[in-house]
Amino acid sequence: MSLEEYFKCLSDRERAIFEGAISMGALFHQFIGTPVNKETLKSLKVAIEDSIKLQPSIEDVEVEINLEDEEGGLGYVSLEGKMLNVKIISQVKDVKAIIKMEYVDELNYPLIYVEDVKEG
Amino acid sequence: MSLEEYFKCLSDRERAIFEGAISMGALFHQFIGTPVNKETLKSLKVAIEDSIKLQPSIEDVEVEINLEDEEGGLGYVSLEGKMLNVKIISQVKDVKAIIKMEYVDELNYPLIYVEDVKEG
Amino acid sequence: MSLEEYFKCLSDRERAIFEGAISMGALFHQFIGTPVNKETLKSLKVAIEDSIKLQPSIEDVEVEINLEDEEGGLGYVSLEGKMLNVKIISQVKDVKAIIKMEYVDELNYPLIYVEDVKEG
Amino acid sequence: MSLEEYFKCLSDRERAIFEGAISMGALFHQFIGTPVNKETLKSLKVAIEDSIKLQPSIEDVEVEINLEDEEGGLGYVSLEGKMLNVKIISQVKDVKAIIKMEYVDELNYPLIYVEDVKEG
Repeated sequence: MSLEEYFKCLSDRERAIFEGAISMGALFHQFIGTPVNKETLKSLKVAIEDSIKLQPSIEDVEVEINLEDEEGGLGYVSLEGKMLNVKIISQVKDVKAIIKMEYVDELNYPLIYVEDVKEG
Repeated sequence: MSLEEYFKCLSDRERAIFEGAISMGALFHQFIGTPVNKETLKSLKVAIEDSIKLQPSIEDVEVEINLEDEEGGLGYVSLEGKMLNVKIISQVKDVKAIIKMEYVDELNYPLIYVEDVKEG
Repeated sequence: MSLEEYFKCLSDRERAIFEGAISMGALFHQFIGTPVNKETLKSLKVAIEDSIKLQPSIEDVEVEINLEDEEGGLGYVSLEGKMLNVKIISQVKDVKAIIKMEYVDELNYPLIYVEDVKEG
Repeated sequence: MSLEEYFKCLSDRERAIFEGAISMGALFHQFIGTPVNKETLKSLKVAIEDSIKLQPSIEDVEVEINLEDEEGGLGYVSLEGKMLNVKIISQVKDVKAIIKMEYVDELNYPLIYVEDVKEG
């Protein structure tokens, strides 16, 4: 069975949405908990972006780690959802999906949503 | 901004696909690495299913952990992608998406794909 | 090389402390981020205890997950260090080490420490 | 209660062993599962080293990721224990513990052990 056959019930648009969503779920659950402070924020950001870009159909990944209000008594904190802003662009043929993760204070929840889907 | 507004660029079908995909990415990256053997396989399966069912729009989760060929010298192994078969059913209004994760030997890869999307 | 040779520079007491500490680090970083609410708290607790008990020299694991102050807008939260109280008992021959993880408010930190080591 | 009081039942030697062991368990269970290939190996290595060095009493961390025999059909693999060689040096006052993680083929297991403890 070819790889394409596994996706025959999806349009290109749907597959772009699908692949971007997998990668956003992956990113959150892989890296939450990682020790981080202002000195190591950059290398963590780069490693997250590099690793998630490897996943199928992922065109670009931008990670912002916000530690402004964070202070652990031992000089670092564990990465949490409320510190993360992420944008993933997934592409299948002519379709690009822009997926975001953003902490929504009213929901007390790191919401993952689709910002836009561009075709053609 | 209401939760629904975040998803206004998606049809119900697309949102079902989106939410199922997030949860599949989450499941893999949260639980890979967990120590497991034949005695603890059942409690791990139940915990994975229970936790992933909490995620938005997830209707059902079925996890199979296959340890047949696995033998660690210390009596257990770390959970790997090749041991997992997962089915997630996500539902948004009248649309159900059936998402699967299955190890594909030729690809040496735990493939996540959409088996079917049922409407109405 | 036999397994014992890898540990020849440690006393039984040191090895009990060593193995308990590995398992506590493992527990935190494996399960932080898991979706949980009051309905699924029990199955998550059991799976954490069962899996960590598999690790070398681990005699007992007790996990308390405290969700009292937690409320996610979507009906669940991601497991965080401040929700966890853990006791691990590791044993090497006649020595038992009692390792704890406890959230220390002043430190804003889930501290892992040795409560006691019992010999003979 | 001061931080030191939590560790009053440990000698400096024992505490160095204890802190190094926590960090080794943390490292394995945080990063196993991360997508990686030869292009991203370097940034992942740096992020692992940087984040684990933040943990209490950790003096140095050296991570080797060995992908020689690995080939995923989609151009990358998930990080597994058998790909990792790690050395952590923990220090408490005059005592340095050298902790290693190494895949032991006969055990089919990523063994964590103490290579040496140097005092004074």
